[in-house]
Amino acid sequence: MQKTDTVAKIGESAALARTIARLNLGASAIVGPGDDAAVVASPDGRFVVTTDTMIEDHDFRLDWSSGFDLGYKAIATNVSDVAAMGAKPTALTVALAVPGDTTVAWLEDFADGLRAGCESLAPGAAVVGGDLASAGKVFIAVTAHGDLEGRVPVLRSGAKPGDVLAVAGTLGRAAAGLALLQFAESEPAAAFDELVDVQLRPQPPIAAGVLAANAGATSMLDVSDGLAKDAGRIAKASNVTIQIDKALLQGFEATIEQAAMRIGASASDWVLFGGEDHSLLATFAADATLPREFKIIGRVLPAGENPLWLDDKVLPERGWDSVTG
Amino acid sequence: MQKTDTVAKIGESAALARTIARLNLGASAIVGPGDDAAVVASPDGRFVVTTDTMIEDHDFRLDWSSGFDLGYKAIATNVSDVAAMGAKPTALTVALAVPGDTTVAWLEDFADGLRAGCESLAPGAAVVGGDLASAGKVFIAVTAHGDLEGRVPVLRSGAKPGDVLAVAGTLGRAAAGLALLQFAESEPAAAFDELVDVQLRPQPPIAAGVLAANAGATSMLDVSDGLAKDAGRIAKASNVTIQIDKALLQGFEATIEQAAMRIGASASDWVLFGGEDHSLLATFAADATLPREFKIIGRVLPAGENPLWLDDKVLPERGWDSVTG
Repeated sequence: MQKTDTVAKIGESAALARTIARLNLGASAIVGPGDDAAVVASPDGRFVVTTDTMIEDHDFRLDWSSGFDLGYKAIATNVSDVAAMGAKPTALTVALAVPGDTTVAWLEDFADGLRAGCESLAPGAAVVGGDLASAGKVFIAVTAHGDLEGRVPVLRSGAKPGDVLAVAGTLGRAAAGLALLQFAESEPAAAFDELVDVQLRPQPPIAAGVLAANAGATSMLDVSDGLAKDAGRIAKASNVTIQIDKALLQGFEATIEQAAMRIGASASDWVLFGGEDHSLLATFAADATLPREFKIIGRVLPAGENPLWLDDKVLPERGWDSVTG
Repeated sequence: MQKTDTVAKIGESAALARTIARLNLGASAIVGPGDDAAVVASPDGRFVVTTDTMIEDHDFRLDWSSGFDLGYKAIATNVSDVAAMGAKPTALTVALAVPGDTTVAWLEDFADGLRAGCESLAPGAAVVGGDLASAGKVFIAVTAHGDLEGRVPVLRSGAKPGDVLAVAGTLGRAAAGLALLQFAESEPAAAFDELVDVQLRPQPPIAAGVLAANAGATSMLDVSDGLAKDAGRIAKASNVTIQIDKALLQGFEATIEQAAMRIGASASDWVLFGGEDHSLLATFAADATLPREFKIIGRVLPAGENPLWLDDKVLPERGWDSVTG
C-alpha cells in the first residue's frame, strides 16, 4: 500500500483496518473493534453516554486542522461531557465520513489524534468501534461513555441558592484561538500559537469532573457554548439566579489580553461568550472544600426576574448555537 | 410556533426541545435527554455498543424517504447490530445534522420515526440523547446500546466445521425495493410497494438475536452488505469455509421474482448480493434446535482455498461497500 492511497481506492474494509490498527486498547473493552458491536465493561451497573458532531466548514476547516487535530478534538469535546456528569470516560465510538479522495495517510493521522486524545485526556479510555462512510464533506460523530463508579450523576439542575459558582480549566482561550485563525493577517496567529493550539486541540480538565463529584458538586456542565450561555443553562435547569463576579474573571482575561489588543478584539467578550474551551463549570455548597482545579467566579441566588447577572448588570445568555452559529 | 418554522429560525435549543418532546421513554434510561450526557442502566455489568451513519445522497434520497422513514430506518439498522451480538437493545443516541432551511415539522416527523422504530422493533428501547447541528446535507449518526442479560456475546468468529448456516428475516427484498425506486418508470415501484417499504423502513427480526444466542448460535452478524459479503465475513473471521445451498434460497427468490421480471433484474442476484435487509445470519451446531425464525441455507466446512461457495461453485464475496458503493 502507498502513502497516497485514497479511501475510494482501497475501500471501506481496508481503510478501516489500517485505521483501527493505530488505536490504543482500552481498559474497559471486552470486545473491541471488528464485530457488529463492541462490548464494554460497566461494573457500576449504569453507564453515561453522550454524542457530539463535528462538520467540515461548520465546526472546522481542513486548512486549519490536521487529521490529528480533529481526532484529538473529537475526543476532547466528548469526554468533557462525560466528565461533567462526574464520570470517568471509558469507551468511545467514532462515525466518520470522508470524501473518496481522502488519503489513507490522513485517516491514519486522524486515528493517531484519537489515540493521543484518549491517552493524554482520559487514560484508560479508548475507541472501541466505529463506522467509515463516504460523503462530500468530512463528518465526525463521536459517542463517549463513562463509568460513575458508584457516584450520583451530577446534573445541571442541582444548584441551590447560597452555592458558589466555580470553573476548572480555561475561559476564552479557544475563542481567542478561533479569532486569531479568522484574522485577515497570519502573523498574530503565529505570535499567539498557544491560543490557536487550544482551539485546535482543547485541553479540558477531565479528571476534575470526578474530583468535583466527590467534593459534592451540586450541578455541573462543560462550557462548550460560552460561560454566559452555559451558566444560564444551570440557572434555568436549577431554577436559580447566577451572579458572576467580574473581578474574579480578571485572571482569565489577563492571559488573552495581549492577543485581543493585537487584533482589536475584547478579552472580556471572549471570556464571557466564547465557546469550545470545554472547561467544567460547577456549583458547590458554600462550605464545600473545592478541588484545587476549581476557581470561584460567582454565586447562586434565589430565582428572580433574570437568571444571569454580571455583578449588578443583567448578563445576556448569548453564545454559540450549533445550528444558527 | 408555526408548522413552517425552520431550524435556522428557531435555533438548536428550541428545535431540539420540540424533537425530544416526541420521543418515547425507555425502560433503561436513568437520566434521559437534556443534560451533558444520559445515564443508562446496564445491570449485566457490560453493555453492547455499535454506531452507524446515514448520509444524504449516499445512503438515502430525501425525495424517496420521509423524515419518518429515515428515523425508523436509523433505528432498524442499528438495533440489528445489537441483536446480532445476542443482546437486547436498550438505548440509542442520535446525532443529526440538517440544512438550516429544514422545517421543524420534518424534524418532528423524524422523531416520530425514531419512536415508531423503537416501539415496533425493540420494545423498551428509546433514544436517550442526541445532538443537532447544521450542515449542507442531512447526516445521521446513530449509536445503539444493548444488554446481554448475562449471555456470552455471539461474535463472527465462532463458526465451526459441521455447523449449519441459517438466516432469520428476508434476503433481497431491500435491494429489490432500491432497484424499483431507481427504475426509470415509477409504475413498478407502485406495483411492488411492499418491497419499496422494506428498503425505506427495514423490518429486521430483532428478537431473533436473543433467541439465537439462547439456542447456542456459534457466530452471528446482521446482513447489511449482502448475503455473500457477510457470509464471507463469518468464514474469514472463523477461519472456515461456508457453502450456501442454492436450492434453499428459492423461497427468498420466489417472493421477489415478479418484481425482478418486471424491471429486467435478477432475483438471485438480489438474494445473494443485495444489502440492507438487516436479517440475522448465524451458525449453529448441527444438533442445535434452531429458533423457528431461522431457516437453514447452508453449512460450515473446514477452511480451504476459497472461503465461500454456492453449491460447487466459488461465490465472490461482493456486495455493498459504504465507501466505494
